[in-house]
Amino acid sequence: MSEQDAPLAEKVIPLTEPPKEGESEKGPSKGALKKAAKEKEKAEKAAVRKAAEDAQKKESEANDISKNDYGELVLFGPTTSSIPTDGTVPWVELEDIPKIFESSSEAEESGGPQVVLTAAVKNARNQGAGLAFLVLQHGYETIQGVVAKSETLSKQMVKFAGSIPSQSIVQMQVVVKKPKDPVKSCSIEHLEVHIKKLFISSKADSQLPMQVEDAERPIPVEGQEEQAEDDGRPKVGLNTRLDNRVIDLTASPNRAIFRIKAGVKRLFSEFLEARDFIDISSPKLLGASSEGGANVFEVKYFESKAYLAQSPQLYKQMCIAAGFQKVFEIGPVFRAENSNTARHLTEFVGLDMEMEFHKDYHEVVSLLEELMLHIFNGLRQQYQKETALLRELYHVEEFKLPEAGKVPRLTFAEGIAMLRADGVEIDDFEDLSTPQEKRLGALVLKKYGSDFYVLDKFPLGIRPFYTMPSEYNPKDPNSGYSNSYDFFMRGQEIMSGAQRIHQTEFLVKRMREHITPVDPESPGLKDYVNAFRKGCREHAGGGIGLERIVMLWLGLTNIRTASLFPRDPGRLTP
Amino acid sequence: MSEQDAPLAEKVIPLTEPPKEGESEKGPSKGALKKAAKEKEKAEKAAVRKAAEDAQKKESEANDISKNDYGELVLFGPTTSSIPTDGTVPWVELEDIPKIFESSSEAEESGGPQVVLTAAVKNARNQGAGLAFLVLQHGYETIQGVVAKSETLSKQMVKFAGSIPSQSIVQMQVVVKKPKDPVKSCSIEHLEVHIKKLFISSKADSQLPMQVEDAERPIPVEGQEEQAEDDGRPKVGLNTRLDNRVIDLTASPNRAIFRIKAGVKRLFSEFLEARDFIDISSPKLLGASSEGGANVFEVKYFESKAYLAQSPQLYKQMCIAAGFQKVFEIGPVFRAENSNTARHLTEFVGLDMEMEFHKDYHEVVSLLEELMLHIFNGLRQQYQKETALLRELYHVEEFKLPEAGKVPRLTFAEGIAMLRADGVEIDDFEDLSTPQEKRLGALVLKKYGSDFYVLDKFPLGIRPFYTMPSEYNPKDPNSGYSNSYDFFMRGQEIMSGAQRIHQTEFLVKRMREHITPVDPESPGLKDYVNAFRKGCREHAGGGIGLERIVMLWLGLTNIRTASLFPRDPGRLTP
Repeated sequence: MSEQDAPLAEKVIPLTEPPKEGESEKGPSKGALKKAAKEKEKAEKAAVRKAAEDAQKKESEANDISKNDYGELVLFGPTTSSIPTDGTVPWVELEDIPKIFESSSEAEESGGPQVVLTAAVKNARNQGAGLAFLVLQHGYETIQGVVAKSETLSKQMVKFAGSIPSQSIVQMQVVVKKPKDPVKSCSIEHLEVHIKKLFISSKADSQLPMQVEDAERPIPVEGQEEQAEDDGRPKVGLNTRLDNRVIDLTASPNRAIFRIKAGVKRLFSEFLEARDFIDISSPKLLGASSEGGANVFEVKYFESKAYLAQSPQLYKQMCIAAGFQKVFEIGPVFRAENSNTARHLTEFVGLDMEMEFHKDYHEVVSLLEELMLHIFNGLRQQYQKETALLRELYHVEEFKLPEAGKVPRLTFAEGIAMLRADGVEIDDFEDLSTPQEKRLGALVLKKYGSDFYVLDKFPLGIRPFYTMPSEYNPKDPNSGYSNSYDFFMRGQEIMSGAQRIHQTEFLVKRMREHITPVDPESPGLKDYVNAFRKGCREHAGGGIGLERIVMLWLGLTNIRTASLFPRDPGRLTP
Repeated sequence: MSEQDAPLAEKVIPLTEPPKEGESEKGPSKGALKKAAKEKEKAEKAAVRKAAEDAQKKESEANDISKNDYGELVLFGPTTSSIPTDGTVPWVELEDIPKIFESSSEAEESGGPQVVLTAAVKNARNQGAGLAFLVLQHGYETIQGVVAKSETLSKQMVKFAGSIPSQSIVQMQVVVKKPKDPVKSCSIEHLEVHIKKLFISSKADSQLPMQVEDAERPIPVEGQEEQAEDDGRPKVGLNTRLDNRVIDLTASPNRAIFRIKAGVKRLFSEFLEARDFIDISSPKLLGASSEGGANVFEVKYFESKAYLAQSPQLYKQMCIAAGFQKVFEIGPVFRAENSNTARHLTEFVGLDMEMEFHKDYHEVVSLLEELMLHIFNGLRQQYQKETALLRELYHVEEFKLPEAGKVPRLTFAEGIAMLRADGVEIDDFEDLSTPQEKRLGALVLKKYGSDFYVLDKFPLGIRPFYTMPSEYNPKDPNSGYSNSYDFFMRGQEIMSGAQRIHQTEFLVKRMREHITPVDPESPGLKDYVNAFRKGCREHAGGGIGLERIVMLWLGLTNIRTASLFPRDPGRLTP
């Protein structure tokens, strides 16, 4: 027997069994021999019992009028089974059942329309008295399945139905009917399906490390995971959920997060594509780190080294230099930052854009404001259900948008003034701390009624070397303000952007005189600098963190919940 | 003077000058002293000459009636200049000029409409007799700019215009007029602009490492780079182009490639979004390699190691297990394959999809065929101009699509039979080599008139472990065919896909008995295997190489030209 042919069960038996209790390695003791004799007797009795059970099962099967109407499907190989139907019954999805019922010409008394469908068993229970109920699920919709003993449906089939492990996938032939009373526990309340044939196409383990139902509840506040819920079920903390992420993602609220995330991507790209932006794919593997090795992941690249891109910044500007006019990119961004906060990931999705402008970088700021309003309004209109699901779960307030679409745009200096008027001590050119940002967000919300606002003209000294100064003082070259801006949602930054320097000579000067100087001749930067030597139009852009938008739109408390399989300094699995 | 304040020019002087020729390190020789004296004299003469020139220039400037109408803009700092206009002249883009001219109410005799515009100077020449011509460019459009000496326009300004380095960006105030004869050298032939004000906003180096014009010609066949073209210009080979990729990308045909590439992305996602697929972002950083270390890039991850994802395969299936139903992803894929061919990249863009189906994986194959036809028809209709630009440059034949949209779908066995009938010796279950694939592509084209076709039911033994067998023989478990398929364009594979195993027990068995066995308990695979323990619907999908579609649609000869900044074993820059 080759290793490949060995039955699966054999694989888990260790090659060398450890000695049993009371058994020395030299030979069995008297007590051990006695014990062995007893065990032998026990085994023999069990064998007899099993034979009797098998015989009974066989007889029961022989007497089972439904024996061809339920079971487990084998969906591969020469003995492939599939739910046996006569081919006239239509295959449908669960969510289409109400529509099919309404358009059905079959009168209620004749039994309602018959369909074949596949669904997950959210849960199954034996009601007794020859009756089993299943909650069947597909997508966000659930419907009640009824398996009732009758002249044509055996008690064995009812028993089988009631013991299907939760989350198993079943194929069924059913009759759609109206229940006597609305089924409160299902999303489709006014209909139920009476199951005539029932086959498992993928059986779930009965012992899963966590339950999908647990993942449908709110994530407990850190440190309170151990306290049980009022109904006695345990609270399941974030780490356990992320360790079992596939089960966690099966919960409706979690799937809803990723519908919304996909929605933000689509709204972002459809807005920009309609304005003739080109969707680019810049390289993620770089020959040298552009920011001098800080927070960058190193890759073994054949006999050499590579680095993972921390943003498409330099490359999207190089596309502008090449005459691409307007570009955007949706792609992964990698940050080797050892931050274990609720707001940081080592891999996230960046929504980046860059464009030429005519006279003033505020043309770009206005377009970005419009873009964000397009996203927010799109989410409001198209993802109402998903948004409500999450905000209700976590008791989060609605995201307030400015009236008449006029986004509050403050200068950094005005922001500082508002904070000072509120009692915060802060310097003119100091960067805002996270608490200060949140405080300013609250002040802006109070004054302008908007959870979304723009802070413009940041101090030059706290922005990257490629940022265009607003007024440039060669004698104190890192003083004053710059043509740069941040966008905020609920007092937290979601986007950072600026007009960039487009003239080579000045760019090189700024690289050298920046507070953190960089070398324009370095391998990571020389191609970037050279890009401008062929002439480049005035341009500006920005980079948005996709997970931040999702988190702050919904009011989630941890950014990990907005990443399918999140990555942080301590997590690389699943 | 701090380092930051030092003028730029100083930076390039080495700190220690090497001893000059004829000068020992001990002290200068007699000959050297004589030479030095001569040089001193020469320098003094040059200084006198320069002073005279400066004086002349000053006088010339004083007499220059146009002195405020041209020059170089400084676009930052307190002395910021911008093209001086009275504010009533509209800013437009070059490509809008024909529209503006037609809708203009100004009669031709009154001079035509006045506008301000920014454009790149494709080339500038002094015609003499107080006349200079510029070819102005934006996007794919070019228009002739005329600078003519007049009572209000000085000869100095004409000289300035004629000497602007190619690719510089200029801001101009112009009058749009009809030329006497059509301007054959520009895309807008029936109009020209008479320049009244002319300012450089970003000056190109006059010595660029290659010319944009050179990049507008076909890439020479390898080994023939050194031969000059008929007109005496050198042929520029692929490597030089890629080394200077920003200049290379500036060429219209190259920019066109990336419009088409963006188009494929959009056509792919719009088709799937319309069918309710969810756009996901799977992780690129993995805790363990899923394919046992072959062809995978290793990343230093804090104190540990990570690996770059070679495809979203396992994660998109995990999303199906989590009930996402239908998913797609557009993202980078990393392959540490040391292949230096015209068809391989170490980083490319994957278009991936995965979906549940009802009864038969051919539901998915049909959807994928429809998807590809949607992409091809979209490219035909929306990217005619870009496609023509490239196919004309490389003399490539049109991409033939099947009549009535019926995609030829052959089984692998039928493909083998066609090859054999054509004289190829090949075994039933052997994988096709690249030349065999191309030959089969030619045979299919001849028989069905289509450059696009599907090969279905590949031998199980040559597909990955997660592939669903068609007929499974437990005694010879790697024999027979499988529910898998490849899609081809012009005889080259662009997509690989299959129905996947969705039952844990069978999956584990297949992992162990596969021709290249993998360990289901390994860190890189256990989360994947566990995903199916909770039940999973039958599903199938595929992964498409985006650059391959672009390359084969256009008939490009090297895949690097379809990647913005291509990566191969020998190239990580720019």
